[in-house]
Amino acid sequence: MNQQLTSLQKWVQDEGLDVAYISNFTNINYFTDFFQDPEERVTGLFVFPDHEPFLFTPALSLEAVKKSGWPYAAFGYLDHEDPFALIADHIRAINPNPLRWGIEKADLAVSKFEALMHEFPQASFPADASPKIEQLQLIKTPAELETMIVAGQQADAAFKAGFAALKAGISEQAVVAEIEYAMMKQGVMHMSFDTIVQAGIDAADPHGGPEATPVRPGELVLFDLGTNNHGYMSDATRTVAFGGAVSPKAKEIFDVCLEAQLTAQAAVRPGLTAAALDKIARDVITKAGYGEYFNHRLGHGIGMSTHEFPSIMAGNDMPLQAGMCFSIEPGIYIPGVAGVRIEDCVHVTADGCEPFTHTNKEFTII
Amino acid sequence: MNQQLTSLQKWVQDEGLDVAYISNFTNINYFTDFFQDPEERVTGLFVFPDHEPFLFTPALSLEAVKKSGWPYAAFGYLDHEDPFALIADHIRAINPNPLRWGIEKADLAVSKFEALMHEFPQASFPADASPKIEQLQLIKTPAELETMIVAGQQADAAFKAGFAALKAGISEQAVVAEIEYAMMKQGVMHMSFDTIVQAGIDAADPHGGPEATPVRPGELVLFDLGTNNHGYMSDATRTVAFGGAVSPKAKEIFDVCLEAQLTAQAAVRPGLTAAALDKIARDVITKAGYGEYFNHRLGHGIGMSTHEFPSIMAGNDMPLQAGMCFSIEPGIYIPGVAGVRIEDCVHVTADGCEPFTHTNKEFTII
Repeated sequence: MNQQLTSLQKWVQDEGLDVAYISNFTNINYFTDFFQDPEERVTGLFVFPDHEPFLFTPALSLEAVKKSGWPYAAFGYLDHEDPFALIADHIRAINPNPLRWGIEKADLAVSKFEALMHEFPQASFPADASPKIEQLQLIKTPAELETMIVAGQQADAAFKAGFAALKAGISEQAVVAEIEYAMMKQGVMHMSFDTIVQAGIDAADPHGGPEATPVRPGELVLFDLGTNNHGYMSDATRTVAFGGAVSPKAKEIFDVCLEAQLTAQAAVRPGLTAAALDKIARDVITKAGYGEYFNHRLGHGIGMSTHEFPSIMAGNDMPLQAGMCFSIEPGIYIPGVAGVRIEDCVHVTADGCEPFTHTNKEFTII
Repeated sequence: MNQQLTSLQKWVQDEGLDVAYISNFTNINYFTDFFQDPEERVTGLFVFPDHEPFLFTPALSLEAVKKSGWPYAAFGYLDHEDPFALIADHIRAINPNPLRWGIEKADLAVSKFEALMHEFPQASFPADASPKIEQLQLIKTPAELETMIVAGQQADAAFKAGFAALKAGISEQAVVAEIEYAMMKQGVMHMSFDTIVQAGIDAADPHGGPEATPVRPGELVLFDLGTNNHGYMSDATRTVAFGGAVSPKAKEIFDVCLEAQLTAQAAVRPGLTAAALDKIARDVITKAGYGEYFNHRLGHGIGMSTHEFPSIMAGNDMPLQAGMCFSIEPGIYIPGVAGVRIEDCVHVTADGCEPFTHTNKEFTII
């Protein structure tokens, strides 16, 4: 049983539960090392206070469960079978009448919850596993950090490929193609999200995708990318100038954004609150007159997902602790003018932080 | 208001609801043409019986909502704000006391459901929108079919790129890299799922991923891939022989699988049940003695997702109707020996079906 699963079983005992049902695919991976792409079929991890856990998956995933090294029972179901009826049978073989349940409220869909209640009409659901799992995932183990450091190195390699691809006439989409192709050639088969390359005014939409139009000289080009290394994510953003000088306004917001990013990253230490860190970056941007154009939080936690805890934002008084991992990514987005974002993910150390990515952040013309 | 959204509003009226909350990102796209990648932030579509609908999204998605052409109200929230408190305010501005709600039970997480109940303690939730949406999505409109036909053409282009990449010494992963690179160079930025290339015994695990090891001559190589064309998916599988003759056993299961696929595809017509279609393919494989190695349903519906209704499997007595779209994908997976799967997605016509993909299915040595 890995350290994480041991902690979860202890929680089941401490809460006086008969069983906990873990339904989120990423969290199942976290506890079991077994991963499959989220789909509508039912996969669940069932954890008991004083019995070995079991996995329940589609029958055609049992081979992959075996490959993952899962040492306990795994049960499958065929597409025409009722998964919750089978789950109930497997649980009753361990405990004929499980009354107190833990579920993942942030993940479990109402319809699956109703199917459970149908099978176990006397059950109560006093415990939400979601906050417990969030809390476990908040502090990374040394083994997790090692995996994330490699993911960061992969992101640095992806920036290198992207900068090399940037040349006259190439489109944002074609730059993305070169980045992801280069990564796959290096054996990195999964980016952690769709690679973002945005030039000029496109970068003022922080949720836009790459366009087919050519990147023009004199524009800022924003790269936001990351990789998935054995389930652990990297995520970083660089903004560079292409083909020569950019407008004074673009250069100004770049300088302000970089100052905000560097100031915040230098300020990280255990005990500082997430809200205070957000404010440190935001104050730099607000003081320069661009506060209204920084319309998202400073950062998000990262691990097996690209958006987890801690959330680095106003209102979050959680003190930072060694082992926490999160992004520091101020952005300034002026519609119709330009957009800049600069981001490293870092892990908190005893007296500061270490970034996972090391690609140069200073103003660079490519 | 598009045809789909009009149907949903009519359902809200027919059910006597005060409001329906659509939470699934793909279904929001289906009703609004606005898409964003699923994330933990809250996005919702709220539909009323006698008032215009509104979208609620993270503030940084409002620009993308505007770009999507959404003609009604859209409200944003900042990361430090409570989304459900804001949603409640916007809803109360339209209806001060909405009592009867429709929700998507197959999608809505228990925690969000509880947040809703907290804001609207007197609300009841008599209507599940999930089956209604599934029913709407079951029959594709001519416009949807046009978009899916193009996605099928893209999948054919992807097979072409994959077969061209297959050469001595190349790995499964490198073939995937060539396929996805070729598609991106053609402007197809999203595959509908991770491209699967599996050679030899790897193909006996229908849920396995591509490996870094070289494809060996004399092996069967399975390609399962698809593309995302403006939100509509293609999905197809071909199995080819690489570098010369394969073992007699591999050739035999290929022949059986192909016969099952062709027989089923030729049998499709309105009125035939999904279960009967599954049985037609399964009987071919069972009669040949490989029934136990065909451990999944014959097919799944396809549209804006790669797994929707109708499910082509035992127990599903739904009669096929013109406009339904689904896969026909028998497979034979013999652990340690070989795996074969052959798949087209089709749409049912007045008297048969038309496949979306046209790449040759006959036994081919590359």
